[in-house]
Amino acid sequence: MKKVAIVGIGMTKLGNLWDKDFSQLGLEAGSKAVFDAGLTSKDINSLYVGTMSSGLFVEQEHTGSLFSGMLGLNNVPATRVEGACASGGIAIRQAYLDILSGKSNVSMALGVEKMTDVSLSQATKALATASSQNFEAWFGATFPALYAMIARLHMHKYGTTEEQMALCAVKNHKNAIHNEYAQFRKEIKVEDVMGSTMVSDPIKLLDCSPITDGAASVILADEESAKKLTDTPIWINASSQGSDVISLHERQDMTTLSATVKAAKDAFLQSKLKPKDIKCVEVHDCFTIAELCALEDLGFCKKGDAGRFIEDGNTHLNAEISVNASGGLKAKGHPIGASGIAQAVEAVTQLRQEAKHRQVDDIKHVMTHNVGGTGGTAVVHIFGRD
Amino acid sequence: MKKVAIVGIGMTKLGNLWDKDFSQLGLEAGSKAVFDAGLTSKDINSLYVGTMSSGLFVEQEHTGSLFSGMLGLNNVPATRVEGACASGGIAIRQAYLDILSGKSNVSMALGVEKMTDVSLSQATKALATASSQNFEAWFGATFPALYAMIARLHMHKYGTTEEQMALCAVKNHKNAIHNEYAQFRKEIKVEDVMGSTMVSDPIKLLDCSPITDGAASVILADEESAKKLTDTPIWINASSQGSDVISLHERQDMTTLSATVKAAKDAFLQSKLKPKDIKCVEVHDCFTIAELCALEDLGFCKKGDAGRFIEDGNTHLNAEISVNASGGLKAKGHPIGASGIAQAVEAVTQLRQEAKHRQVDDIKHVMTHNVGGTGGTAVVHIFGRD
Repeated sequence: MKKVAIVGIGMTKLGNLWDKDFSQLGLEAGSKAVFDAGLTSKDINSLYVGTMSSGLFVEQEHTGSLFSGMLGLNNVPATRVEGACASGGIAIRQAYLDILSGKSNVSMALGVEKMTDVSLSQATKALATASSQNFEAWFGATFPALYAMIARLHMHKYGTTEEQMALCAVKNHKNAIHNEYAQFRKEIKVEDVMGSTMVSDPIKLLDCSPITDGAASVILADEESAKKLTDTPIWINASSQGSDVISLHERQDMTTLSATVKAAKDAFLQSKLKPKDIKCVEVHDCFTIAELCALEDLGFCKKGDAGRFIEDGNTHLNAEISVNASGGLKAKGHPIGASGIAQAVEAVTQLRQEAKHRQVDDIKHVMTHNVGGTGGTAVVHIFGRD
Repeated sequence: MKKVAIVGIGMTKLGNLWDKDFSQLGLEAGSKAVFDAGLTSKDINSLYVGTMSSGLFVEQEHTGSLFSGMLGLNNVPATRVEGACASGGIAIRQAYLDILSGKSNVSMALGVEKMTDVSLSQATKALATASSQNFEAWFGATFPALYAMIARLHMHKYGTTEEQMALCAVKNHKNAIHNEYAQFRKEIKVEDVMGSTMVSDPIKLLDCSPITDGAASVILADEESAKKLTDTPIWINASSQGSDVISLHERQDMTTLSATVKAAKDAFLQSKLKPKDIKCVEVHDCFTIAELCALEDLGFCKKGDAGRFIEDGNTHLNAEISVNASGGLKAKGHPIGASGIAQAVEAVTQLRQEAKHRQVDDIKHVMTHNVGGTGGTAVVHIFGRD
């Protein structure tokens, strides 16, 4: 198997970016990644744009062509990919496959979402298109409502508590203080989460990731190109993707994301690594319960044990496993199509030892885990220094 | 380079399908393709869904997961790809790259669009998201208006006439009579086109492809799998994709689609074929002027000559080159995300010698040409019996 590395990263600040439009966000992140790689845009052989619902958010589809033009690429294949909130992870994987196929030597993955140009109710409706329109969204189920069902069942089956979930938000806010790109750089306490507005019982406002504008980009290169470009290529040790039925009612166990289980198994096989080899992971914490499910489904603790695993402090920065050192979707922000790529930007930053006050010590590998919808799609990557 | 073949095809009738919803259309086309290939859904290693704007048309994104579940695939990677009206062609190319990369032996491309669940003005607005929101759609430019500018310039520069454009519609309607899947199976005359309602001068109603519901699917396999599955694999001799700036005002020459020129050049290089080797082509005739530009940009006649080339009868069934034997987007119908795959279904049907009354004689290769927007994306495939 060919080796593929990340040789360039770039991202925008995440947040309510009312002074920048959709196309400016993508241009900023993409240009930064090209510059970081020491390339010009003419060196890029293909582009994959991850965006979930630019049609509903900003009335712009066909974003492959849009950004290929804005970035001055050379008429190369430019494709938008989508898998709801996993669109960014998919963009990286498609760029990776493109290089493996031999069609590209250097490929760009660019994730963008501009969510604040519509009202909150329109945003909620746009997000609901990641669930089954026929069996969920049509009946008024929003994403907090769907994850609330997962949380309630997890509590019922395993004794998980609301406080244990709240601890994820508290930790992620603490980590985000040290991330200059993060939307929320402010510490919160368990009492703040517990006392925040109930959104969909048991999910409270501070259990939820926010509505976010932002973009992120990584540039992938084959081994020969990577070694020419940089002394610190960050290698893709594994790139895997799994699917599941889109709606919760069809699943055998709502607390298990089979797509994550499948993607994680493939990723460990590809990389010949085991969960204990991973000391730093960016998981898809769109809601705090999702961080618990992720730790279980990725194999970092047993099914049902995540609440206690977190309560025992195992997921803090430089503890047993550093989970969401970036601040995660909760505190760094969750610009849907960009989130999977922002995770990879964090992984590369950590592996380059450039994460400053949130640096995880002595890491050789970082895993990223990006979920679409309630688990209809999951993408797992493992990045490493060799 | 590995060889990849199409081993299964399936599509729905195209038209105003008010008795079937988005998901039923995809399920029907996908199931037919699996059956045609002699496979079960568990044999498929990956899925690429081409749909342009299911968010705006039916409030359903995340269609990779949706159809992977509905078709009973085995938790395999399932990805929606989009490049406006070229989404279907892109889905085939991504499935092709997936097999070349070694990650899949068998991959499904599925294109779906359900356009009649919204009003005509909503559909027009959804389609406009394939152009630049900032520089075109926002100012009220619809797709007929954008192509009208291309047509007007083509007439001005090359003396092309409205009657020459009308001849494309007349021919395509004539061909569609023999296509059981076509939306319009009715002959029309030049006078009908010339007398039809003006949409955007000089484009009249019968110069336009229709609003269409429908789905189409093809199954791709590597050489070993293909030879086991069928005695008549249809090989992919070339698969190429080009891009251009999304908006017309940024182009050097509005009558030339650089993305098509790029993709065609790559396709001829890959296949070691020349334009004169192609006796059957499905081109992207979203408007009649688009068929003229396609013939020129693909290299079948000189720039500016397409009007006369058509007038001389060269593009009729079994003439110099059979153009849109299926009826094209104009008469077969144009369910956006499915159109590029419906073209491939026609190519395979022709190469299997199963096209009955619209069969092109003695063909060895068929080209398909799928365009996104006004040419921001173009995908070209060449299929062959060896």
